[in-house]
Amino acid sequence: MTERQVIRTLIVEIPSAPGSFAKVATAIGNVGGDIGDIKTIKIGTLSTVRDITVVCEDDDELNAVVSEVEALGNGVKILAVTDDVLKAHEGGKIHMKSKTDVRSLSDLRRVYTPGVANVCEEIQRHPEKARYFTSIGNTVAIVTDGTAVLGLGNIGPVAGMPVMEGKAVLFDQFAGISGVPVLLDTSDPDKVVETVKHIHQSYGAILLEDIGSPHCFEIEERLKAELPIPVMHDDQHGTAVVTLASFLTACKAAEIDPAKAVVGQIGLGAAGIAICRMLMAYGVKDVFGIDLNEEAVNRLKGYGGKTMDSLNDLMDTCDIVIATTGVQGLIKPEMVKKGQVILALSNPHPEIRPEDALEAGAAFAADGRLVNNVLGFPGIFRGALNAEAKEITYAMLIAAAEAIVDNTRPGDLVPNALNPAVHQAVAEAVERVASIKAK
Amino acid sequence: MTERQVIRTLIVEIPSAPGSFAKVATAIGNVGGDIGDIKTIKIGTLSTVRDITVVCEDDDELNAVVSEVEALGNGVKILAVTDDVLKAHEGGKIHMKSKTDVRSLSDLRRVYTPGVANVCEEIQRHPEKARYFTSIGNTVAIVTDGTAVLGLGNIGPVAGMPVMEGKAVLFDQFAGISGVPVLLDTSDPDKVVETVKHIHQSYGAILLEDIGSPHCFEIEERLKAELPIPVMHDDQHGTAVVTLASFLTACKAAEIDPAKAVVGQIGLGAAGIAICRMLMAYGVKDVFGIDLNEEAVNRLKGYGGKTMDSLNDLMDTCDIVIATTGVQGLIKPEMVKKGQVILALSNPHPEIRPEDALEAGAAFAADGRLVNNVLGFPGIFRGALNAEAKEITYAMLIAAAEAIVDNTRPGDLVPNALNPAVHQAVAEAVERVASIKAK
Repeated sequence: MTERQVIRTLIVEIPSAPGSFAKVATAIGNVGGDIGDIKTIKIGTLSTVRDITVVCEDDDELNAVVSEVEALGNGVKILAVTDDVLKAHEGGKIHMKSKTDVRSLSDLRRVYTPGVANVCEEIQRHPEKARYFTSIGNTVAIVTDGTAVLGLGNIGPVAGMPVMEGKAVLFDQFAGISGVPVLLDTSDPDKVVETVKHIHQSYGAILLEDIGSPHCFEIEERLKAELPIPVMHDDQHGTAVVTLASFLTACKAAEIDPAKAVVGQIGLGAAGIAICRMLMAYGVKDVFGIDLNEEAVNRLKGYGGKTMDSLNDLMDTCDIVIATTGVQGLIKPEMVKKGQVILALSNPHPEIRPEDALEAGAAFAADGRLVNNVLGFPGIFRGALNAEAKEITYAMLIAAAEAIVDNTRPGDLVPNALNPAVHQAVAEAVERVASIKAK
Repeated sequence: MTERQVIRTLIVEIPSAPGSFAKVATAIGNVGGDIGDIKTIKIGTLSTVRDITVVCEDDDELNAVVSEVEALGNGVKILAVTDDVLKAHEGGKIHMKSKTDVRSLSDLRRVYTPGVANVCEEIQRHPEKARYFTSIGNTVAIVTDGTAVLGLGNIGPVAGMPVMEGKAVLFDQFAGISGVPVLLDTSDPDKVVETVKHIHQSYGAILLEDIGSPHCFEIEERLKAELPIPVMHDDQHGTAVVTLASFLTACKAAEIDPAKAVVGQIGLGAAGIAICRMLMAYGVKDVFGIDLNEEAVNRLKGYGGKTMDSLNDLMDTCDIVIATTGVQGLIKPEMVKKGQVILALSNPHPEIRPEDALEAGAAFAADGRLVNNVLGFPGIFRGALNAEAKEITYAMLIAAAEAIVDNTRPGDLVPNALNPAVHQAVAEAVERVASIKAK
């Protein structure tokens, strides 16, 4: 559920006269460019230089934006087009930092030999103290085989590394967690499970990331069963948490009782299956899932889910429809039932545009631009680590979704992912539930 | 080769009168306590409070220090005895940090989705660009099974974690390398090799650490043969580099030509074997090694080394003697030959005290307190990563040793490990040799 777009920064010189900047902004918008951050670099009497971040669908659109701006003339000049994304990734995005400086011989003797021997012996005598005297209890492995990276598919773990580093960045920023990428050169469930088991003592929890379907199911279930620490596949359950939160908020907006709603899930990949299971765990009785792949439908049935004969049947029957198919325009306006809630989550091209769904009679409609996993996983893992949980349960995940709902402002589908309070609320909710379970 | 000592900080109130502090210092020294850092916490008209770091052999000696200071009376009071070492380890010593802040939606879109997809595709198209756009090329795995941690032996990888974190701290501080501990729950060479191979794409190089003998030999050799990135077992080759540097400096001090010297190595564990191999690689023709363990002697012979019948023969024959046995007092003063160089490296108790060896006629003598691996591994790995080396060769290790020698001040055995210039010199020397090799 990820957009794939071209992000560039245009460095533009614009005459210092009222209305000049608006002309540039209009030109960019005319050809479909989205304007992001704008920074003023230089203000002169005659001209002003600004960094304008522009998000485009593809390179063609970017070229159109550049031409359109250049065509303005009258002193408007593009000085450069820079690729901030690549620049931001130079040298990688993460680094294992020492928490203390080693400046004196005493420092060295404290953090390294001979002092460190005392700490080792303390942990040898009381293994549970590893939680306090090492970083293990605050470290999460970000494990991938690179078979389902974003919407890019099986590009391999090394090409997927920028995503894993991105996860580590978000762990650090939003939850104070030390996230360590682990790139696997195998997708064989036996070998993946064996490898992760052999290294699991290094970590307080395991985040499985961008592992393809169907092997992701076996890998996650076996690791959950065999390891004494929390294991979660984010593309399944992280997505399902944020979707459940969106679902609950949409129900509220459309005045539908979520427990009594008839829900249809279109698309039963890793995310779709997990969304169905999450809704059932939440207590939604009527959850129907459909997919062209029979194996996927059978997998849903194995988890106790129900199916329907066709997309039309599903659209006719369900109060709430969630789609994660990746197929643009799959839902036609004429299929929409009056008063229906439609969450068309595929990115960047939803199964139906929200405005089209609303015009066709939907009570509430949204696409997937805001339904971003970043709202879930940092707080979920923070809470699980704080509680020293041995697993991540549906009760914990539902608590996370409810915390997201509680932090959503009226009129919004989800909260702002940059707000630290959201992540803290998720962490607290998860920790509370995990602590009750543990007692 | 590590000292095991008790480090505590005494918070002491001392009358603000000339000579008072000297009495406290004398009392500590009287019972064998070594004074480290001293910080003045409060200066009053009547009394002054100081943090005095004291290093003791064991708890008994610490108790003696405390009693001796308390017995001074006359206003001298110990306010507290704190364990700074444990305190410095609270929460662990390392954290995976983001290199950039995520403050705006634009930041998020740059380092995470959707921007990150561009970087993934760039690496997919040009795999060699992973060096520039990820942290992989600057990351070293610190891999252990915890079977030979410091002098503590087989305490397991979790109890050994403070050492691995210590290595990561030193990597960060002295070489700007991101060091990531990997704790293995197996020592079986097949499983270790398999596991490290499955995760090796996450790293630019592998440091094997505190893996016991003899399985360390097979593990290192197989990983070196099978992985396309540098692999080095620090307890072998890191130790050997610093020992070679000490050996060369000692030869200079005793005016012995290292190439023509007859060298005896007492003790053929991981370090002893590696020291013999390093000396042979350096060009020392007559290297003899002895050990009570026949298997170890045969291993040395397998590497082309020679042996002798007895310790007495070795002491009678060799110009230079290196000992890494862990057996205190193994070398008796009457065994020492006039003009001999003796490096008795076992910690904390050398095979012969330098002063005793000198009194018995040695031309140069030293113990292992300063021969610390920290002088070697940060710069060695920095150089190897900079050169994008595929392996760490003897030529690179010898260049590292020579750089250490070049940075040793006259009269010293090794340089100060806290001096960044030393690590930089090692890195440059290693990179230079690695780059020549690569051409």
